[in-house]
Amino acid sequence: MKQHALNFNSGPAVLPLEVIETSKQALQNFNDTGLSILEIGHRTEAFKALVFETQNNVKNLMNIGADYEVLFLTGGATQQFMQIPYNLLNKSDSAAYVVNGIWGEKAVQEAQIWSQIQVVSNTTNENHTKIETDFVVDKNHKYLHVTSNNTVEGTQWHQFPKTEIPLVADMSSDIFSRQLDFTKFDLIYAGAQKNLGAAGVTLVVIKKSILENNPENLSPILDYRQHIKAGAILNTPPVFAIYVLSETVKWIINNGGLNSMEQNTFEKASAIYKIIDDYKDVFHCPVRKEDRSFNNIIFNMPKELETNFLNECKAHKFIGLKGYRTKGGVRISIYNAMPLEDVKILGNFMLDFVKRYV
Amino acid sequence: MKQHALNFNSGPAVLPLEVIETSKQALQNFNDTGLSILEIGHRTEAFKALVFETQNNVKNLMNIGADYEVLFLTGGATQQFMQIPYNLLNKSDSAAYVVNGIWGEKAVQEAQIWSQIQVVSNTTNENHTKIETDFVVDKNHKYLHVTSNNTVEGTQWHQFPKTEIPLVADMSSDIFSRQLDFTKFDLIYAGAQKNLGAAGVTLVVIKKSILENNPENLSPILDYRQHIKAGAILNTPPVFAIYVLSETVKWIINNGGLNSMEQNTFEKASAIYKIIDDYKDVFHCPVRKEDRSFNNIIFNMPKELETNFLNECKAHKFIGLKGYRTKGGVRISIYNAMPLEDVKILGNFMLDFVKRYV
Repeated sequence: MKQHALNFNSGPAVLPLEVIETSKQALQNFNDTGLSILEIGHRTEAFKALVFETQNNVKNLMNIGADYEVLFLTGGATQQFMQIPYNLLNKSDSAAYVVNGIWGEKAVQEAQIWSQIQVVSNTTNENHTKIETDFVVDKNHKYLHVTSNNTVEGTQWHQFPKTEIPLVADMSSDIFSRQLDFTKFDLIYAGAQKNLGAAGVTLVVIKKSILENNPENLSPILDYRQHIKAGAILNTPPVFAIYVLSETVKWIINNGGLNSMEQNTFEKASAIYKIIDDYKDVFHCPVRKEDRSFNNIIFNMPKELETNFLNECKAHKFIGLKGYRTKGGVRISIYNAMPLEDVKILGNFMLDFVKRYV
Repeated sequence: MKQHALNFNSGPAVLPLEVIETSKQALQNFNDTGLSILEIGHRTEAFKALVFETQNNVKNLMNIGADYEVLFLTGGATQQFMQIPYNLLNKSDSAAYVVNGIWGEKAVQEAQIWSQIQVVSNTTNENHTKIETDFVVDKNHKYLHVTSNNTVEGTQWHQFPKTEIPLVADMSSDIFSRQLDFTKFDLIYAGAQKNLGAAGVTLVVIKKSILENNPENLSPILDYRQHIKAGAILNTPPVFAIYVLSETVKWIINNGGLNSMEQNTFEKASAIYKIIDDYKDVFHCPVRKEDRSFNNIIFNMPKELETNFLNECKAHKFIGLKGYRTKGGVRISIYNAMPLEDVKILGNFMLDFVKRYV
């Protein structure tokens, strides 16, 4: 029985009801151990098996092989902004960064602490309303960093840049929402709280070759190699957050995998974008059409209409529609777990709103 | 209705049944939001209120004032091994460390990466079977670091060292199990998975004065000052783990606070130590009596007896009694949430075992 409000939060975000149900059961009795998942030792066979199974499920979904490692770290994508340059860049190394929004900017801020960073593309002057693809990357950089989907600005890479150097991507807000050739990437990371589960764990997928010739004598807890050597259980990991991630990944597999996620995502996003395009005077999406995000749809409305719109959304228990705290406007986040029917309810409300106000 | 096995895990460990029950409800519908706690935005008023309330509850329990800050970080105590020297020590600074066991050793390993560390007391030669108190600390060190309770070695500081320099303590395994004058400490940290809740969050309590004259230009995500400035919500925190911590802290308050926790802890530990002392030939606790831990009781048994003992424990669903993975022996962890009645069941089993085998 659905007791949920309609959750358009940008993250932490909507989760599959099945995952919440299973999590409740695991809170009572995990895997017939007689213990709650919250009380289970992280070095028990049951938990080690869960980690191993989830690593394999992630690899299968991504269609990547033994040349990749799968870790479940903490501190969110933001800590990866720091761990990536800390692990990959020697003092004499440099890296190239693309800045298409607030998260790319933050990634650069952290990276600059550790080494030389060159911003090879920056769409600040266009208010990040588009993705630029015509930039040049010096081959001497150790890697190129991109944000695959910009949660705040509502843009998304639909064709990733071709590059001769390793490609590193923050996929926090669109991972597993589409088919990709993941073998094109050397490091992929994603905070779990959008498409992968609950806040508290970050998926980090690393091609082993990118860990060669890296700095020595790193802090062990920040060193990817130490985490890999310890089989992804270096110290006490966030057991429950990993459990929810494991269940969410299983849910994706059981619901048709990435192919199916991609179709559903496209169908949901298209339904909203159609309304936006049909009623341009009411819903103004500033993003260049070919760069629109299928996960986070942003638009502005004439001021008075927007206030009414957001108030009515609140009354309808449509949650999380206010734009990013420093940006304003409206944002509709439609991750994998958001049912098409809920998107249609919102779409019908938008149409009804137009009828009543315009 | 108790469906639980008897959980003597060293951590993640037993939680109060009430906390598990409340967590299950929050998984269904948090605070009447219509959303699961797993789906709730970390910048919502509801979650910000929870963080603020928990900070206050922690401060009240510790009887500390506005000169302290309370943070909820990630990466376990191990990440604090790194963050403490990284935040507090300039290149020219040094710090003093006490090594009474494996966790103190690991703290030194991480700290050495960042600055000069002097080990002022090391009980390795005594197999960490006691706590030394007759060491001298140079006043020029920036702080003195101790591990308040040694989970693996079964020792505990019952009188903390008097020092003229700031005192930093890893209290992961005995926080809130006793009354302490917390104002004597300048930084206290504890992974949640023993006495504070579930794995995935680390409580860090900082006296503001220790953050003065610290290194500039730190990585923002690793910088305590940035977390404080952001009201303990710098980036997406581990929402659910913080929720469980908040409920566990409330449970401590509702069950008589630290005074009551201390009495219960003493009563439970004494019941087991009495059996150990009464049957020295069967249960050999190597720890010097005045340094015994009230949270983690360790002992060895004659080899064949020990195998039988651990096998029978397993059959009785007494969980987590095997000593630390690199150490062996038996370990009984009895944190706050472990009921006295469960300890008595184990105690009676120990007595019965003696009768049958000796």
